[in-house]
Amino acid sequence: MRSQGDGEPTPVALPAEVRVVNVGLGVFGESVRAQGAPVVDLDWRIPAGGRPDLVAALVRLYGRWGARVGRANREVIRRLQESSPLLVGISTLAEAAPDVDGRVLLHPGPPLGWADFCGPLRRSARAAAVAQGWAGSPEEAEALIGRGEVRVEPANHHATVVPMATVIGPLDPVFVVENGPGGNRSCAPLNQGPGEAAWFGVDTPEAIRKLVWLREVAGPALAEALRRSGPIDLFSLVAQGLQMGDDVHIRSQATTNLLLRALLPHLVAGEHPGRLELARFLSSNHLFFLNLAMAAAKATVDWAARVEGASVVVGMARNGTTFGIRLGGLEGWFTAPAPPVGNALYQPGYGPEDGAADIGDSAVLELVGLGGAAAAASPALASFLGGVAGAMEATATFATICAARSDRFKLPSLEFQGSPIGVDVRRVVELEVTPSIDTGILHASEPRGQIGAGVAQAPLECFRQAILALDRWLSDRERWGEG
Amino acid sequence: MRSQGDGEPTPVALPAEVRVVNVGLGVFGESVRAQGAPVVDLDWRIPAGGRPDLVAALVRLYGRWGARVGRANREVIRRLQESSPLLVGISTLAEAAPDVDGRVLLHPGPPLGWADFCGPLRRSARAAAVAQGWAGSPEEAEALIGRGEVRVEPANHHATVVPMATVIGPLDPVFVVENGPGGNRSCAPLNQGPGEAAWFGVDTPEAIRKLVWLREVAGPALAEALRRSGPIDLFSLVAQGLQMGDDVHIRSQATTNLLLRALLPHLVAGEHPGRLELARFLSSNHLFFLNLAMAAAKATVDWAARVEGASVVVGMARNGTTFGIRLGGLEGWFTAPAPPVGNALYQPGYGPEDGAADIGDSAVLELVGLGGAAAAASPALASFLGGVAGAMEATATFATICAARSDRFKLPSLEFQGSPIGVDVRRVVELEVTPSIDTGILHASEPRGQIGAGVAQAPLECFRQAILALDRWLSDRERWGEG
Repeated sequence: MRSQGDGEPTPVALPAEVRVVNVGLGVFGESVRAQGAPVVDLDWRIPAGGRPDLVAALVRLYGRWGARVGRANREVIRRLQESSPLLVGISTLAEAAPDVDGRVLLHPGPPLGWADFCGPLRRSARAAAVAQGWAGSPEEAEALIGRGEVRVEPANHHATVVPMATVIGPLDPVFVVENGPGGNRSCAPLNQGPGEAAWFGVDTPEAIRKLVWLREVAGPALAEALRRSGPIDLFSLVAQGLQMGDDVHIRSQATTNLLLRALLPHLVAGEHPGRLELARFLSSNHLFFLNLAMAAAKATVDWAARVEGASVVVGMARNGTTFGIRLGGLEGWFTAPAPPVGNALYQPGYGPEDGAADIGDSAVLELVGLGGAAAAASPALASFLGGVAGAMEATATFATICAARSDRFKLPSLEFQGSPIGVDVRRVVELEVTPSIDTGILHASEPRGQIGAGVAQAPLECFRQAILALDRWLSDRERWGEG
Repeated sequence: MRSQGDGEPTPVALPAEVRVVNVGLGVFGESVRAQGAPVVDLDWRIPAGGRPDLVAALVRLYGRWGARVGRANREVIRRLQESSPLLVGISTLAEAAPDVDGRVLLHPGPPLGWADFCGPLRRSARAAAVAQGWAGSPEEAEALIGRGEVRVEPANHHATVVPMATVIGPLDPVFVVENGPGGNRSCAPLNQGPGEAAWFGVDTPEAIRKLVWLREVAGPALAEALRRSGPIDLFSLVAQGLQMGDDVHIRSQATTNLLLRALLPHLVAGEHPGRLELARFLSSNHLFFLNLAMAAAKATVDWAARVEGASVVVGMARNGTTFGIRLGGLEGWFTAPAPPVGNALYQPGYGPEDGAADIGDSAVLELVGLGGAAAAASPALASFLGGVAGAMEATATFATICAARSDRFKLPSLEFQGSPIGVDVRRVVELEVTPSIDTGILHASEPRGQIGAGVAQAPLECFRQAILALDRWLSDRERWGEG
């Protein structure tokens, strides 16, 4: 009804037909639809959940500082596109990272006090301390670490990444990856393989023997093969693997096989007495490439992290207790409690009540266009995500929070569109959509190893802290005339 | 206008709105659509091109003999689903096929007189005769074969299949594949690899040296590895390869890598002095599995071919001059001139005028749900077929002429639907849709090797002959009371 001047309201004819555009909550549209009227739903939500501090920060980060952030982001994206991580060899962690000094164990994720280690990570650390020869048993190791005689530090702080609950010490063999364009290096340990293994939170004698075997046999034998093969372009293999059903996180079988094909003549030609055992191990470990992909991603984001003032995430990792992200130029981690792993498939006999929280440095893959970002590449992921259509939808959703598409990682099921790269904290906070991470699930309380796999949703809180910190940093720069 | 009794036609009001279902040629629908009326196009064509003899045969094959043909087809399909081809080892062709006696060369496709050999096949035969030690030069070989002192026979007649222009003799190493459920065997030679090779129609000294090397080095070294590995389930690898971007015809890289992963420890453990050269060859030959997939498919269709009275094709091969298909229980081949390869991509500097006609026994793959039938599995094929959507369309079209879907070969991009299997000659002739075959292209007149790849369309004429022959066979059986 319209009002005409100050007089009585003039009756108007109701329209014969009502068409509605419903903005926001679907339930309002539903009630109109129930009355037989056509409704177009527009998926709109209040930005940043309507929190005034976040909205104010976003207004500045898109507005006043938008040009500066955009410039920094473009340089971050250029580095994500142009890094060139090559596997150049294997050495001990102590040789590769001289700042890993004395009795130190490296763990995944943000910094964490020993008291806060979750079950699987605690068991893995005990196994590692025994394998390093510092303790005679997991119990003795526990006491040593508890007394601070063995220190624990984040692998990420030493240009190193470790998957799941992997813990490594100075004697362990690591892949050395060089990123020529950035002039930087990264490391990752050898993948420990399926079954009874410490990286799955197991500290049995068998799991400890495997760590010693990796150090004494597999590492040196593989180092010999790599000396013969020369440097291996890791992202070239990754790009091919994406055409062959890998998301290169939960599934890296095709990429692993491409590596094995490349190494085959060098393993046959080798003289190291351990190379037959190594060949058997490689032949039955379809996850072997995972750690290499992570090292390549780490070399990439570490180069990008030298750019200041960007809103694109350059670090993302979990220690099983906290989940953290990093922005270039900003100190420390933005953390929140590690989320559970959802959309999960469990081994028979296990369920959500048995699963530990999301863990490992492998989430760095999601920052370079792999894993959850590349879900559409992998038929294997369809089982978690409601079919191939669901996997394609997961990539589409991931793309909504990304600043670019990869020039080198192409997704065949999306007609070779590039995989989304460059997770922008502004978009995450604005849309309240966080990166989804393809990952395994460990048993929380017992040394049962991997009991399932699924998708973890990064906690929004980290990203909220990050935009507030970036906003403060830019504000300080402006105040001191450095903006 | 309607007529009422015998009187004057009664005028009737024209309808205010016209809706049209257009059956057949799209142009009629277009003209109605141009006048603003809605049109639903129904894709209908005159069955069998309207040829009375073919229509009459189809009427009988679907009607009078439909139940009998259907019963036979179900048994053929059961065999296509349940064959279990295992790679059990390597031996010489003479050992594996004792009926290959004396100076005989096996060639692809239906029987062919030497005078009708196309350029690539002729050159490959010359190279093979020299490599067997029967002639000192390709020219001498040409004369020997021309005089009938070296005979030529179809590999298919000896339970053997050879890809492209491959020609083999009694001394050559062949894979031996056993199909337990059928109690039958099949053979295929080792793939000769990329580059300057006889199977691509090259008879240079280098191509001949490669044949000798395969016989003296690669064959025995690989035989040793297979003795160590034990039997390998070929269709298990194929099923995985389809999840990893292979159509397992034009592209078999993922399946090759799965095989190499399985063989890796056995190649490292081996003692044969040739195993390093073999490892280098395998590491750089992404087509190596092609011949194994073909042998597995041959073992499968040969078992199915023992069923009489079925309309499902159990043999399909080309010799570069003729294209032929076979039906179970019917003598000989139904042939037509070999088609050109269409939808082609050429190496720089080459075009359709340089290409030889469709050649090789590899079309047997299309009979078991691979190659063109599995186009939707392979992003690599998208480049020939108008993108991923085109590849999916190719599989959908192939399915229209097939009697079933594979229980073991699943297509991820089609939400894991089975690949179409069992090409039914009745459907082919009725719909005038023939199998599309993913294939390479050889240079017609010079020893330049592979110059491109594309899709060949099987000639309809073979299928027309086949339904007429099947119709006669069933008619004869009925006459003699055996129907």
